[in-house]
Amino acid sequence: MTGRFEFKLLGRDGAARRGVIRTPRGEVRTPAFMPVGTAGTVKAMLPESVRATGADILLGNTYHLMLRPGAERVARLGGLHRFMNWDRPILTDSGGFQVMSLAGLRKLTEEGVTFKSHIDGSRHELSPERSMEIQRLLGSDIVMCFDECPALPADRKRIEQSMRLSMRWAARSREAFGERPGHALFGIQQGGLERDLREESAEALKAIGFEGYAIGGLAVGEGQEAMFGVLDHAPGMLPEDRPRYLMGVGKPDDIVGAVKRGVDMMDCVLPSRSGRTGQAWTRRGVVNLKNARHADDPRPLDEACGCPACRGYSRAYLHHVFRANEMISGMLLTWHNLHYFQEIMAGMRDAIGEGRFADWEAEFHATRALGDIEPV
Amino acid sequence: MTGRFEFKLLGRDGAARRGVIRTPRGEVRTPAFMPVGTAGTVKAMLPESVRATGADILLGNTYHLMLRPGAERVARLGGLHRFMNWDRPILTDSGGFQVMSLAGLRKLTEEGVTFKSHIDGSRHELSPERSMEIQRLLGSDIVMCFDECPALPADRKRIEQSMRLSMRWAARSREAFGERPGHALFGIQQGGLERDLREESAEALKAIGFEGYAIGGLAVGEGQEAMFGVLDHAPGMLPEDRPRYLMGVGKPDDIVGAVKRGVDMMDCVLPSRSGRTGQAWTRRGVVNLKNARHADDPRPLDEACGCPACRGYSRAYLHHVFRANEMISGMLLTWHNLHYFQEIMAGMRDAIGEGRFADWEAEFHATRALGDIEPV
Repeated sequence: MTGRFEFKLLGRDGAARRGVIRTPRGEVRTPAFMPVGTAGTVKAMLPESVRATGADILLGNTYHLMLRPGAERVARLGGLHRFMNWDRPILTDSGGFQVMSLAGLRKLTEEGVTFKSHIDGSRHELSPERSMEIQRLLGSDIVMCFDECPALPADRKRIEQSMRLSMRWAARSREAFGERPGHALFGIQQGGLERDLREESAEALKAIGFEGYAIGGLAVGEGQEAMFGVLDHAPGMLPEDRPRYLMGVGKPDDIVGAVKRGVDMMDCVLPSRSGRTGQAWTRRGVVNLKNARHADDPRPLDEACGCPACRGYSRAYLHHVFRANEMISGMLLTWHNLHYFQEIMAGMRDAIGEGRFADWEAEFHATRALGDIEPV
Repeated sequence: MTGRFEFKLLGRDGAARRGVIRTPRGEVRTPAFMPVGTAGTVKAMLPESVRATGADILLGNTYHLMLRPGAERVARLGGLHRFMNWDRPILTDSGGFQVMSLAGLRKLTEEGVTFKSHIDGSRHELSPERSMEIQRLLGSDIVMCFDECPALPADRKRIEQSMRLSMRWAARSREAFGERPGHALFGIQQGGLERDLREESAEALKAIGFEGYAIGGLAVGEGQEAMFGVLDHAPGMLPEDRPRYLMGVGKPDDIVGAVKRGVDMMDCVLPSRSGRTGQAWTRRGVVNLKNARHADDPRPLDEACGCPACRGYSRAYLHHVFRANEMISGMLLTWHNLHYFQEIMAGMRDAIGEGRFADWEAEFHATRALGDIEPV
């Protein structure tokens, strides 16, 4: 434990990096996957169970929390950590992305954005200053700059204008964030798939100076090949000695490809969302438990997995409780999925530390290529 | 552990009894409250969490399990204990009660009952013989006789005919159950609110002979006063040296009143069902977490409670996650409610053992009479 926020690079294997983020609330081993606790809970999980999967840090959503229960209320109740019973690090997004994807009647100006709540239609506004204030009220350990992120495909002009607006907002975010020892502010690189715009964005952010740097504007519909195309150069534009966070990614093979290209942190709702729809992510790919082929299958989801769903239950049971719409279905599959995602991260951290990332990656892909076990 | 099923009476305080049921799968401390695991899961709970609340035994529903996933399937998968990952005792009901309350197009004859599934409309039948077979396939430790239970109010003639049919079915259940060392068959007393019919039923059951005796046909709309009126005499009609099980009860004060009158076992969906609708049962009565008065309340649901919901979260959080329709709401409140119900049972067991049940009961009622804590 330390009173400061710091990042230490512990090892490297090709472009892949292993490191540790130290915060007053504990360490984050990188590469790190952050489960998403949208509205003060990682859906279907108790926080101690999230921790048991191996998560060092959670992500909270500014947009959801500002609308319900409200940032000032969370602050009065002692902050988000205490509110949701998670005493380890929390990263909060800025709200910008979700305003664009969820809210109604948005109006975007140089100043910020006004919008209507998707919950009750009430009117709200977000700006770099208000986003910093909300994230401070929540007590977030890693705060994200307020930015604007266009969905892809978008034309170059739109990408460029949006990126430059986000860079002006990044400067205002830095200013509004102020001095908060032990807390970090991350800048967010934008620029879509345009290499020169990514360069320009990276330079703008470095000129301002941040404790970490995110790669934004990806995983918004461009596809894996295009995303990897950006990741082939974008991480290298960012400072070596600061963590690099790829926002909103992703599927297991997206995650592995991103780490291979130098990304240190990621987040995604995928493992928890899939878990609530009967989808399990395993070493051998996706398994749909709702499929009738599992109804009489006494075998675990993955015999090599140590999570509660795989240690205690058959596929037949997981099939049954999904079909019967029982909550334990989402509880067990979310746990399994988060466990599996964390296992990938741990595997990569070890492999990078031992200089065998390429072998690890080859085995990861080879095992997936086997596909699920044969039906009974 | 023992290879046999046995009941040992350990103490007595007035009509209240403290004892232990020994089965090959472990002991059940009585008075016992059995959480209901309808379809192979106590809703919103992992089995290890159910155990952590203090439950020694679960109840499973023959009606639900025969329809989905099917008793033969559960048997092929190793039985209900293995299927649902609960290695301690399980009691299964006979299916009779739920056929009457849930199924469609019922037809009742001397032989048994045919009905349509409420899930998919498929046609099924239940009889004493088939109910015994299903409960054997499930691997239940305590098997209930197949009976018929009319809703109250019903006229005396209907109650009498139904009770006598149930007694003929009890004899057929005993015959069909056969010899199953380590497993128990419980008879079910019927007779509505009619004392002489309750007597007749008890005599019929004792003549057949069972490992335990249930009091059926109550908690079906008659009200607490009428139920206690029956419980003032019904337990005494049953053998002293066998456990007495009051089916489908109930609220905390129903439970306390039943134990006071000589009941050893109970089951009810109330704590789990309430937990999914934002209702918490506490020492000071019912708390509705959806109420806006809790939105800013930093205090736990019950400061004296040791459950995870009370140790880790504020009322404000519990209010928030209920309003946001988050699964953790049902998970935490179900845990709390089951914990509280088990705490009542433990409190009564200790009080009976120490001859101070009347004092315990007085304090139980006095604390409830205080009502919930004042709003902040």
